[in-house]
Amino acid sequence: MSGNSIGKKLVLTTFGESHGPCIGGVIDGYPAGFSIDLSHIDSELARRRPGQSSIVTPRKEKDVVEFLSGIYKDKTLGTPIAFIIKNEDSKPSDYRKLKDIYRPSHSDYTYEMKYGVRDERGGGRSSARETVARVVAGAMAKQFLSKQNVQIKAFVRSVGNISTKKTIEDIDFDNIESSPARCPDPEVSKKIIKYIEKLKEEGDSTGGVVECFITGVKPGLGEPVFDKLHADLGKAMLSINAVKGFDYGCGFDSAKMTGSQHNDPFFMENGRIKTITNNSGGIQGGISNGMDIVFRVAFKPTPTIKKQQITVDKTGQKTKFTSEGRHDPCVVPRAVPIVESMAAVVIMDHFLRMQPC
Amino acid sequence: MSGNSIGKKLVLTTFGESHGPCIGGVIDGYPAGFSIDLSHIDSELARRRPGQSSIVTPRKEKDVVEFLSGIYKDKTLGTPIAFIIKNEDSKPSDYRKLKDIYRPSHSDYTYEMKYGVRDERGGGRSSARETVARVVAGAMAKQFLSKQNVQIKAFVRSVGNISTKKTIEDIDFDNIESSPARCPDPEVSKKIIKYIEKLKEEGDSTGGVVECFITGVKPGLGEPVFDKLHADLGKAMLSINAVKGFDYGCGFDSAKMTGSQHNDPFFMENGRIKTITNNSGGIQGGISNGMDIVFRVAFKPTPTIKKQQITVDKTGQKTKFTSEGRHDPCVVPRAVPIVESMAAVVIMDHFLRMQPC
Amino acid sequence: MSGNSIGKKLVLTTFGESHGPCIGGVIDGYPAGFSIDLSHIDSELARRRPGQSSIVTPRKEKDVVEFLSGIYKDKTLGTPIAFIIKNEDSKPSDYRKLKDIYRPSHSDYTYEMKYGVRDERGGGRSSARETVARVVAGAMAKQFLSKQNVQIKAFVRSVGNISTKKTIEDIDFDNIESSPARCPDPEVSKKIIKYIEKLKEEGDSTGGVVECFITGVKPGLGEPVFDKLHADLGKAMLSINAVKGFDYGCGFDSAKMTGSQHNDPFFMENGRIKTITNNSGGIQGGISNGMDIVFRVAFKPTPTIKKQQITVDKTGQKTKFTSEGRHDPCVVPRAVPIVESMAAVVIMDHFLRMQPC
Amino acid sequence: MSGNSIGKKLVLTTFGESHGPCIGGVIDGYPAGFSIDLSHIDSELARRRPGQSSIVTPRKEKDVVEFLSGIYKDKTLGTPIAFIIKNEDSKPSDYRKLKDIYRPSHSDYTYEMKYGVRDERGGGRSSARETVARVVAGAMAKQFLSKQNVQIKAFVRSVGNISTKKTIEDIDFDNIESSPARCPDPEVSKKIIKYIEKLKEEGDSTGGVVECFITGVKPGLGEPVFDKLHADLGKAMLSINAVKGFDYGCGFDSAKMTGSQHNDPFFMENGRIKTITNNSGGIQGGISNGMDIVFRVAFKPTPTIKKQQITVDKTGQKTKFTSEGRHDPCVVPRAVPIVESMAAVVIMDHFLRMQPC
Repeated sequence: MSGNSIGKKLVLTTFGESHGPCIGGVIDGYPAGFSIDLSHIDSELARRRPGQSSIVTPRKEKDVVEFLSGIYKDKTLGTPIAFIIKNEDSKPSDYRKLKDIYRPSHSDYTYEMKYGVRDERGGGRSSARETVARVVAGAMAKQFLSKQNVQIKAFVRSVGNISTKKTIEDIDFDNIESSPARCPDPEVSKKIIKYIEKLKEEGDSTGGVVECFITGVKPGLGEPVFDKLHADLGKAMLSINAVKGFDYGCGFDSAKMTGSQHNDPFFMENGRIKTITNNSGGIQGGISNGMDIVFRVAFKPTPTIKKQQITVDKTGQKTKFTSEGRHDPCVVPRAVPIVESMAAVVIMDHFLRMQPC
Repeated sequence: MSGNSIGKKLVLTTFGESHGPCIGGVIDGYPAGFSIDLSHIDSELARRRPGQSSIVTPRKEKDVVEFLSGIYKDKTLGTPIAFIIKNEDSKPSDYRKLKDIYRPSHSDYTYEMKYGVRDERGGGRSSARETVARVVAGAMAKQFLSKQNVQIKAFVRSVGNISTKKTIEDIDFDNIESSPARCPDPEVSKKIIKYIEKLKEEGDSTGGVVECFITGVKPGLGEPVFDKLHADLGKAMLSINAVKGFDYGCGFDSAKMTGSQHNDPFFMENGRIKTITNNSGGIQGGISNGMDIVFRVAFKPTPTIKKQQITVDKTGQKTKFTSEGRHDPCVVPRAVPIVESMAAVVIMDHFLRMQPC
Repeated sequence: MSGNSIGKKLVLTTFGESHGPCIGGVIDGYPAGFSIDLSHIDSELARRRPGQSSIVTPRKEKDVVEFLSGIYKDKTLGTPIAFIIKNEDSKPSDYRKLKDIYRPSHSDYTYEMKYGVRDERGGGRSSARETVARVVAGAMAKQFLSKQNVQIKAFVRSVGNISTKKTIEDIDFDNIESSPARCPDPEVSKKIIKYIEKLKEEGDSTGGVVECFITGVKPGLGEPVFDKLHADLGKAMLSINAVKGFDYGCGFDSAKMTGSQHNDPFFMENGRIKTITNNSGGIQGGISNGMDIVFRVAFKPTPTIKKQQITVDKTGQKTKFTSEGRHDPCVVPRAVPIVESMAAVVIMDHFLRMQPC
Repeated sequence: MSGNSIGKKLVLTTFGESHGPCIGGVIDGYPAGFSIDLSHIDSELARRRPGQSSIVTPRKEKDVVEFLSGIYKDKTLGTPIAFIIKNEDSKPSDYRKLKDIYRPSHSDYTYEMKYGVRDERGGGRSSARETVARVVAGAMAKQFLSKQNVQIKAFVRSVGNISTKKTIEDIDFDNIESSPARCPDPEVSKKIIKYIEKLKEEGDSTGGVVECFITGVKPGLGEPVFDKLHADLGKAMLSINAVKGFDYGCGFDSAKMTGSQHNDPFFMENGRIKTITNNSGGIQGGISNGMDIVFRVAFKPTPTIKKQQITVDKTGQKTKFTSEGRHDPCVVPRAVPIVESMAAVVIMDHFLRMQPC
């Protein structure tokens, strides 16, 4: 019943409010005896960190992870791994005047309806700050999967109406991190940055699409009929703040295709059965088929904008207001490591679930 | 760990292979003392039934549900409700020659990789016949939700490139069931039927998009941070055979919008807080806000086509083959009640989860 | 949340009321490709079957298991295994007059308080008839474990005040099934039968203790801190009808011992670390240590007796009544295969959970 | 799959090793808007704290709980409540020489077999220090239940062969805390203290039995057939360090009784249906019947003793050793609040699970 846990064999539980003492998590089911590379976790946190470029929120957080259990002499013990990341640059005062109003398309209203009470110092539990815990877990899952030759790479496919047409084959993955837009198409990347900077100036925001592909997953991961691999990936992605859609393989485009166009013929190469095309996105019948897994995640524009908006206060009274908190004009570049992290957590969970006897 | 169960407070487990004796399910957590309308379940099964029109598979199944437990004198006992639907018109002989080949974009290959063994008489567990159990559970959930004034309606938004542009406000819901295409836009409906019939003749198939909206859900359903209402809806939809994508509210389109376009301003009407627009699709921060819930589900074209295809057999040998089993040229019209059913199961689960103390 | 499921990797769900059409179950997570010996399941069912001797209930049930899914050509498919056992000799008329009264120490009252409704044709869901599904699952788990050299044997340690003092080393296990009392001590067995027959004549009943020991479990099974091996065994035993207590190793007697008496010193034998004594009952810190696992389960006397009793009816009115239904004067001999079955389900679940990567 | 979590609607996850930075926990599912009394949590921790009397371990721990999330202005937010208790007086040096040997009846050997690695600074995860997190969760559950008029009281029934014969009716509960033995029978209490002090001097230890009774639980808690109330209580108790047995109501004694002795006749009093006797211990068919819930928990003697013992080292070599760490000669008095805490967690979980629609 625990809504703050995900996974069945590798279980991640997160906790923490944006303006409480910390964000944290507990990972249960991580195999024992695994050497953890702490500097890799740091570098993943740096990819998500606020303040990393001109196009993201200026909130300053060191985002240093502190392990509380489950690791001894840099090795996992097989016991639950708890960790925290302190909240340092929280400015609850920014939010004081928002205490009694419901910001449009935020979760102030729904949290209050559900819980009858809320931490009004910012988003509280609903803040995307929670995702910092997911990045720690994701980094640890990536390290595990890396030993299994599984690599997970996400990038920005589009921001607003600006989109790269590059196919996955054409992408130079070294280019992803070289631009603050995390789009591996230098021309498009520049346009994206310019667009976000313009919106920032206007006090507006935009959405975008992150694409993720995963190589090296062996055939057999996924548990029909409900825990299909793409169903669990989809749920994990949809659980990330601001996500509005998920599709994999040809996704929504497959709805427009005929069977003769969409079917992926099998062939044999070097003793391994593969498909000529990969419209299936690496998953058939909910189970990985050994081809690259490809999916997309749609993010809505950040609801916090500096343009004046109308809304109501707690009493239902109409009111105008203008946001003053620090926020991203576009969350999509910072979402790239979050998407990868949740993918890693899901793939590792299914990897552990399918272990044969 | 059970991949064949979904839900936390209302738990649906399904079982059965397409050519075994039956498909069935167990519903645990359904409240006691509820009067079940068996004729409503029958009518829901009829909406999914094969052979219902010229554009679907001619497989003949009476699809009569038989309850094994949990109901006494038409009332639920609070104990697990088990039920079966017999498989009657199974023709395993259709599949005999497919025993040793991997059909493209089916799950023959992945099931064999995962389990090392498979029921080669048709899709076995991976067959969409499994969804008959979901419709029984969905009908029961709908009856419960109906008492809570929750209504769930799905329809065909598009097939191939043919799509209705009608907004939800414009739709006449009485028109959905009047056409075998289940598209509530008579003009578009005719085009869809014609298109599917053409593909049927050509031995090809097509995909499409089902849209679902849900009215009457009170604010507060959904369990952050992982069991967000849309994350659980998304997983449930992605667990349906042939589904390739899910989005809600403005979905993938929201990625192109700015915050000032996308945000839904609150206002007060008749003592209830509502939003002027509903780009959020009835869910904010993973919790229902009392507005209509709207989402879309993308289906790929049926992989079974009568055109000749190439593939490999179990030994990796290249081979040509042509399907002969009975299949739908387009699953989308029959998927409408399945989408509604899974939505009902998820909404009822969250309804039961949020009960206050 | 599903109270009718047990296990995490091997999940058993049961369903059915004593006077409904059948009792059944679904096993999810059973590995694929395993050859099932159906005659072994039958022989296990025969051990539990009513009417097997003069000291048990005369209810006549063939107790033939019918598999609905998950097995094809006698091999498991890796998909959920559903099965039913029909109720044939149900005599609801026996219960008609009990419809409005609460039988002492039965669950009529508590079911009605919980659910507001109940199947008054006998115990309904609360009847020990439900355990027939556990024996099917247990037989399948035993077959799996047997391939891992795990053997599970239970026997009657005591009935009323009659008890065998034999140590496990002294027991001739071939003697367990040779007596209807299932006590491997021929002298004690005779006394037990005589005692039960006397009580039967008097219309009374008695309790007893079943002891179970398990050989061949390798070190490492059990998941601290909550899913300790003995905690999961204990829960499974306590979930059996009429069970009032569980202890393992020296159990309640260990509370009277000193550490220097109770501690099990380690030693090395044939390259394997063992303990000289086994006061720990094969489990230390919740994890199997490779020694025999030993535990005991206390059963209360059957609440159905033919002596006149007083109680109240639904309105709270005092009333006298005398049972007429067919019941066991002592459930303990028939409980032996049920205890073994639940042990097998738990051990197999933990075996699958500990698979290494 | 997460072995470090317990409960379904109220989920407690614990983490931490005895000599790591802290012990902690996360509580998910605690209702929102509840005012937490922090001083009550402190007082519960004080009851469990080491060093509280001459008969317990002299390890000095302040045991101050620090909340990391889920509570704002002393009110629960409905979000996960994370907390830690720092380890302050850890003396890993005490354990250095035990690094390579397996202490008898400790879990050194089983942890190493399971995980291949262990935190050799004391018991690590297997240490009873983990229970400090359970007491925090238990205190919070008690506060919730107290508002529902549920009271949970445990006491020491016996230590070694010394036992109080007082019935629950005879017990003066104000006497429990007045003696360091936590036995509400002053004469017996003195004997217990004397006995423990004698064993302490001899470097030995002893076991004992804690009895717990719970008043005010309304009828209807418990979820057949596997999550019976006593089955979940039993599992929770058996998950506590050093526990070897659990029984409820007449427990193991009921195995010696006849049905006519054991059955609890119903009667009506002040408009409420009750039973004349309470041999059932407040639970029938796995569901609370409104009478007091009574159960017992058997603890083995602490395995750490100062007498010389023999054992083997990691290589299997026979070796002698003598413990030097600080430990309790008898854990039973300190176990009283732990038993109460786990009972509170289970009862609250079931209370939340049974909420009606």
